[in-house]
Formats: sequence, structure tokens, C-alpha cells
Amino acid sequence: MNDNKLLPLREKIDAIDAAILELLNQRASVAQEVGHVKAETNAPVFRPEREAQVLRNMAAKNTGPLLNDDIQLIFREVMSACRALERRVVVAFLGPVGTFSEQAVYKQFGHAIEALPCISIDEVFRATEAGTADFGVVPIENSSEGAINRTLDLLLQTSLAISGEVAIPVQHSLMSKSGTMEGVTRICAHSQALAQCQAWLNQHFPHVERQAVASNAEAARMASADYSVAAIASEIAGHQYNLGIVSAHIQDDPHNRTRFAVVGRLNTTPSGKDQTSIVLATPNKAGAVYNLLAPLSKHGVSMTRFESRPARTGNWEYYFYVDVEGHAMDAKVKAAMDELNQDAAFFKILGSYPCTV
Amino acid sequence: MNDNKLLPLREKIDAIDAAILELLNQRASVAQEVGHVKAETNAPVFRPEREAQVLRNMAAKNTGPLLNDDIQLIFREVMSACRALERRVVVAFLGPVGTFSEQAVYKQFGHAIEALPCISIDEVFRATEAGTADFGVVPIENSSEGAINRTLDLLLQTSLAISGEVAIPVQHSLMSKSGTMEGVTRICAHSQALAQCQAWLNQHFPHVERQAVASNAEAARMASADYSVAAIASEIAGHQYNLGIVSAHIQDDPHNRTRFAVVGRLNTTPSGKDQTSIVLATPNKAGAVYNLLAPLSKHGVSMTRFESRPARTGNWEYYFYVDVEGHAMDAKVKAAMDELNQDAAFFKILGSYPCTV
Repeated sequence: MNDNKLLPLREKIDAIDAAILELLNQRASVAQEVGHVKAETNAPVFRPEREAQVLRNMAAKNTGPLLNDDIQLIFREVMSACRALERRVVVAFLGPVGTFSEQAVYKQFGHAIEALPCISIDEVFRATEAGTADFGVVPIENSSEGAINRTLDLLLQTSLAISGEVAIPVQHSLMSKSGTMEGVTRICAHSQALAQCQAWLNQHFPHVERQAVASNAEAARMASADYSVAAIASEIAGHQYNLGIVSAHIQDDPHNRTRFAVVGRLNTTPSGKDQTSIVLATPNKAGAVYNLLAPLSKHGVSMTRFESRPARTGNWEYYFYVDVEGHAMDAKVKAAMDELNQDAAFFKILGSYPCTV
Repeated sequence: MNDNKLLPLREKIDAIDAAILELLNQRASVAQEVGHVKAETNAPVFRPEREAQVLRNMAAKNTGPLLNDDIQLIFREVMSACRALERRVVVAFLGPVGTFSEQAVYKQFGHAIEALPCISIDEVFRATEAGTADFGVVPIENSSEGAINRTLDLLLQTSLAISGEVAIPVQHSLMSKSGTMEGVTRICAHSQALAQCQAWLNQHFPHVERQAVASNAEAARMASADYSVAAIASEIAGHQYNLGIVSAHIQDDPHNRTRFAVVGRLNTTPSGKDQTSIVLATPNKAGAVYNLLAPLSKHGVSMTRFESRPARTGNWEYYFYVDVEGHAMDAKVKAAMDELNQDAAFFKILGSYPCTV
């Protein structure tokens, strides 16, 4: 063994760990003081804008070798543990345990919380509105499960504000039993996955039949039983069914993600790098949209996302869900919002919150 | 706002965070040196005994206010991130994502790993034996799902050694729609849960009918629809079905847990506080067991667990799964094992590994 070489290094690590431990407890003590100050004015335990600032700060100062992602994961847990000395934040999410929603909860809040699985998106909103939960985490743009319409509908009516956004990466790979396309006559996947890989498929396998099946996992299962089938699915599903990878990460958008909104009863103050989500409607469609959004360009506010959704009731035909850069308390965003509010038939600010760290 | 009071405290925290960040990167640099030394001799990236020592060390030195559990969670992630600079350890587990098994994986290895969900316990063993995964995590004593027999069978044959144990707490509460027992005529739960709460039920509600149903979640659902039903289930399930808590944590054993074994291709060296799992068999049953175990008491080795399991094939009737205190490399454990090996019709050391931290 090489214990002679390892021992002094391990002693070094032990000394560093002891120093880290001491600093962690110092931090926790100061955090407790913060808690006492907050308690005087009933201020909330979890401040998304403050935590986003800490994480950005750490990423900016990080010299390596640790990766920013790992540093942020560690500091999430540090903040989570410090917070929990005051009170465990309760976070409602669309259960069951083990969904991507739960991953999003821990990514945003760390593990020193109480995660409360709910049976429906409605229930997440209800639990958070009623105060059973401090926050709720709901899918807002889901590339494979299509559960977002309900979230969008509920956001229209709720008294809750969006206070954060979490993204979980989703990647597709082309896989088959042999790990090659030899003898493959069909490529199977969920229709959403086929759509997300369309350009790549058109370029590489334009003449192979594509078949939509119930889920990507089902496609992987089919491929595991049949050399003539290739599947598009996650590598995890591929592993599970012993498939070989023909080509990895073939989705047309390399940053394909499922997005979640964090909703809460409080408005979030500016963190320095924020975005604002709004929803608005016009009574008629043609041209009106362009005019409607004129205040944004007039005030130099960048739009980062635009989605329309047919209105099921009311006097207008479409709702427009728009994300813009900046916080609603920023002067130019505020000016643009005020004008939008005057012009639109329906207007609601869903929330201003820190951009994903 | 009380920002005047908060600001100086936040500045203090920022300064502490910067110091922690620097130490984390120092630690990672030394860990990289460790990696280089290990690479010279092909030593494994993950050493359960070393990580157990670090965690115990931190718990022993911890002065608070942070709780030991939170400190250990943070250091798991720190070690996980440092390890990942060398290579991400691959851990196979019984999927799907989101089971207690996955929780156990992250509890043991931190998040900077690749978790590989498998469709069966057999597949976890196979992936780990084949080297697709560095480690496998399998349920070994599961208070509600009863999946352990397969694990015990596979442990008999496998070339893998147990290198760790993880416990996930399981707690039961008595709940009803009204939050009281008024009008309740039946208590429903999975048979395992009823059994685990038997003494408590006999004491508090001896005359209320008990009914075994498919799962505790099903019991909770029934209770949510019927004032005459109370359910025994997790509080999470209760929340989900809007039940009120009649009495919390009623299981007879307050430390009710699901246990998982971590299996790997390498034997673990002593960590200072270890246990050893063995399995043995005798050709006949009566009295033989007592004689069989005599070497343990003779050499002063404490037995911490004893389970028998009917053998399905072979010349003996039962397999005995025994856990003892100490590492198989400890002199007295080794002496006892040698004697057991001589006397038993079948004898296998499943592994020596650090006690749960």
C-alpha cells in the first residue's frame, strides 16, 4: 500500500475539515442572529433573492478546482441547514416522492426542509395559499409530460407570486440493443421526444420510420426486445434495458430542460439579476399582440420568453405569458408594466424573482 | 424594514462564506493529490471506511449550533464533490428514481455521483459485478415492502462484499378525517404497519377493529373518504389526503427503519467502528444453532443481529444471517470466524464495513 504517501495528505484534509466545521458553526450562529432580527418583524425565514445572491457570489469568487455546480450544491445545503435552526421551511410539490418535481425542490431549497408531496398541481397551490406550505413547486414547462396547462391556468387566478424558477436538464439519446443502427427499421419514442429530436433525425436518419409510443421508457423496453427498433430515451432508461448508445444527446436544443416555478405568498425583492413573469390578454388577435408589447421595447425591456395559450372563457381569445428581464421594482420595467396594464384587456404580474443561478 | 440590523450580519456571513469557499478548494486540491497517489496503485476512488471516519470525526468535534445530521449531510456533499474531480462514482440501485433506495444512495454517496436505476435487485448485483457500477445499493430489511428475500438469496452467491449500511427512518401515525377517533370503527393499514404498531394499538384502542389493506397510502385514501375509518400511514400520506393526526409516531419501535446494504467489488478495511455480516447454515436445526454460535461468545464477539431464513435448496433447512460487532480483520473476530467456518455446513463472510454514522 501507499499509506505512507496518503497519511500526510489525509492529515491535511482533516485539518481543513476541522476549520470548515468551525466556520460552518460560526455561520450558523450569525444566521441565528439574523433569525432573531427577522422574528422581531415577522420577516420570512427563506429569502430567495438573498440566497441567489450568496450562490452567485460564491460562483464569482470560485477559483476551482471545485466546479461551480458542486460549490452551489454545497452552499445550498449550508444555507438550508442554517435556515433549519430557525424553522424547517415546508415546500409543497407535485408528488409522488421521486419525481423531477422533488428534485427541483431540493435543488432550490437544499435538504434541511420538509417536502410535502401533493396529489395534484391544484393541491400544491391550495396548500401554499392556505399556509400549510411556505412555498410550492410546480412544473411550468415540461418537455415530456405536458402538465403545464393546469399550472398556467392556476397562475391566472392565484394570490401567490412566482418567487423562483428551477430547471432540471432533460437529455435524449438514440439507443438500440446492438448499439448500432444495423438492421434498425423503426425509431420509437414519445411524440414529444420525437419532436425535440426532429432536426437531428432529419439530418442523420431521414428514411427510418418514426413511431410515437406511450413513453420513452416504453420505447427503450421495445428496443431491448427487438433488434429492428431503436429508441430515443434518457441514458438512464437505456442502462436499465441494456441498450447500447448509437448517439448521445441528440435533442435539437442542447439545453432541453423541464422548468419549474416556485410560488409563495410573498413578493421577492430585487437580487441584482431578476426576471419578471406577466400574463396579459387582448380582445382580438391580429396585430394586437405586436401593439400590446410596444411598451417593452419603448422602455428598453428585453423579452426572454413569449407563449400564447387559448383562453377557455372570457372575452378574449388568447392569454400571453411573457417573461422579461429585470425586476418589477426596476424603474424601466415598472414604466413598461404600467403601460401594459393600461392597454391590455387583462394584465397580471405573476412575480419578479432571481434568474436561475 | 430592519435592513440596518440585517446588513452587518449579512456582511459577516459573506466573509465567512468566502473563507469556507477557500477552504473547500484547498480541500479539493489536496484530494486531487490523494487521487494521484491512488492512481499510481489503482486504489479505489471511494473508500467507505475513510469517509465514515471523516464523518465521525466531524460529529465528535461539532460544538453546534448546527446539528450533527446537517453537518454530516454537508460533508457528504463536500467529499462527493472532491471525489467527482477524479471520477464520478457510479452507483446502481433498485429504481425507479424516487424510491427510498435512491434516498439511500444519496445519503451514502452525496449527489456528485451517477445514480443508475435498475429494474430489479438482480440487476443491481449484475451491474455491480460486471463493473458497470462501482457500487450497488439494495434493500436488506424493508419494513413495508418485503423485498429483502431476494437480496438475501443473492448475497449467498455473489462475489460482491457488503461495504456499508444505510438506514432510512420509517414512521407511522394514526390519522383520520376529523383528526380524532370519534365515530371511528375501523383502523386500516398495510399488514406490516399494523404489526409494527400492535402494542400501541392494544394499549390505546384494543376494541377498534383492525383491517389490513393493500398499502398505507390506500388506508389514507379510505380514511379521507370515510369518517368511520382511521389510517396508519406516514404523515406525508396524511397531508396528501388532508387527514388530521390522532397520534403521531405510534410504531412500537421508535427507530423503525428500512435498511439498505451497499455492495461493491472490494473489501473495506477497518474504520475503527465496524461490523461484520456473515451467513451460515447447519444440517439440522434443534440446538445446533446455539452450538454453532458458541465461538462468538468464546471470543467475546457481540452479535447485533440474528435472522433465520428457510433454505429453498441444499442439505440444510435454514440459513442464518448474523451481524457481529467488529471487523473480520480484528483478532478476536477473525478467531471466531475461523471456528465458525470449521463447524458450519455453510459459511460465508458477506462483508466487514463501517457502522452507520
